[in-house]
Amino acid sequence: MPDKRPDPVQPADAEARALTQGLLQNARHAALAYTDPATGTAGISRIAFGLGPDGMPVTLVSALSAHHAALVAHPAAAVMVGEPGDKGDPLTHPRLMLRVTAEFVDRTDPVHAALRDHWLTHHPKAKLYIDFADFTFARLRPVSALLNGGFGRAHHLSPADLAM
Amino acid sequence: MPDKRPDPVQPADAEARALTQGLLQNARHAALAYTDPATGTAGISRIAFGLGPDGMPVTLVSALSAHHAALVAHPAAAVMVGEPGDKGDPLTHPRLMLRVTAEFVDRTDPVHAALRDHWLTHHPKAKLYIDFADFTFARLRPVSALLNGGFGRAHHLSPADLAM
Repeated sequence: MPDKRPDPVQPADAEARALTQGLLQNARHAALAYTDPATGTAGISRIAFGLGPDGMPVTLVSALSAHHAALVAHPAAAVMVGEPGDKGDPLTHPRLMLRVTAEFVDRTDPVHAALRDHWLTHHPKAKLYIDFADFTFARLRPVSALLNGGFGRAHHLSPADLAM
Repeated sequence: MPDKRPDPVQPADAEARALTQGLLQNARHAALAYTDPATGTAGISRIAFGLGPDGMPVTLVSALSAHHAALVAHPAAAVMVGEPGDKGDPLTHPRLMLRVTAEFVDRTDPVHAALRDHWLTHHPKAKLYIDFADFTFARLRPVSALLNGGFGRAHHLSPADLAM
């Protein structure tokens, strides 16, 4: 019975923190798990992903998307970054799962201009739509994180472990 | 206001069904959104993904994983398949989001042997652990699906649209 075994997940160490930083800095998209306000069940979407000038995970979303309405209703969500590539068992490739609280950034917020400029340096193709009225940034403020570096290599991380 | 615009998502057509079949048949892993039984909020994991002999989406999971316990508590979940690759805007690459009901397959179930053999043809590296006592198959029975083929190319699909 799994609940009688010791926790197979280890605390963070320097190697886990370094791997985590690499996953966060290289990610340009993520999978987002949200709570569907209509059903209360879990939904999933691909989202754009990046880090703000302060290292905070950020997404740029359209108000037309199902997950925009979901995050407004239920800001508690989860994101996963780290792509497995085409070779080997995909479950041996590192990925990072973040539990987050989504915080929308109004265009009138003083940080918006710097966030927009920073985003475009890492997501240049977003210039096609970043200024559309329905697109908005949301910070994905980490609550906790789980790094899975492959079978038997899982680590719990705190928001402090995620800071650059 | 998004709720006053027409639904930007189209019904399924032959092209959408063909793209969907390609995404399902080529996927060897998926992102799973589940409801965390401890918090009631959305969680996310990478899972192995394939189709059973009957074309039904299937995963192979360890009972040690957080999502195993979550799917037992809340079988209503969502999966996403379709990898964006390294080029272009990742949000223009097709992906398929399925709302599913997870149904675990007991090893004593008469379908188990055929499911195991079929799985190994597409996931040969799983032979290292497929017979471990804590690994089990779960069908991911589709409830509905959304194909996002890129901006402005989204389609609703029914379980019938997903059948091969």
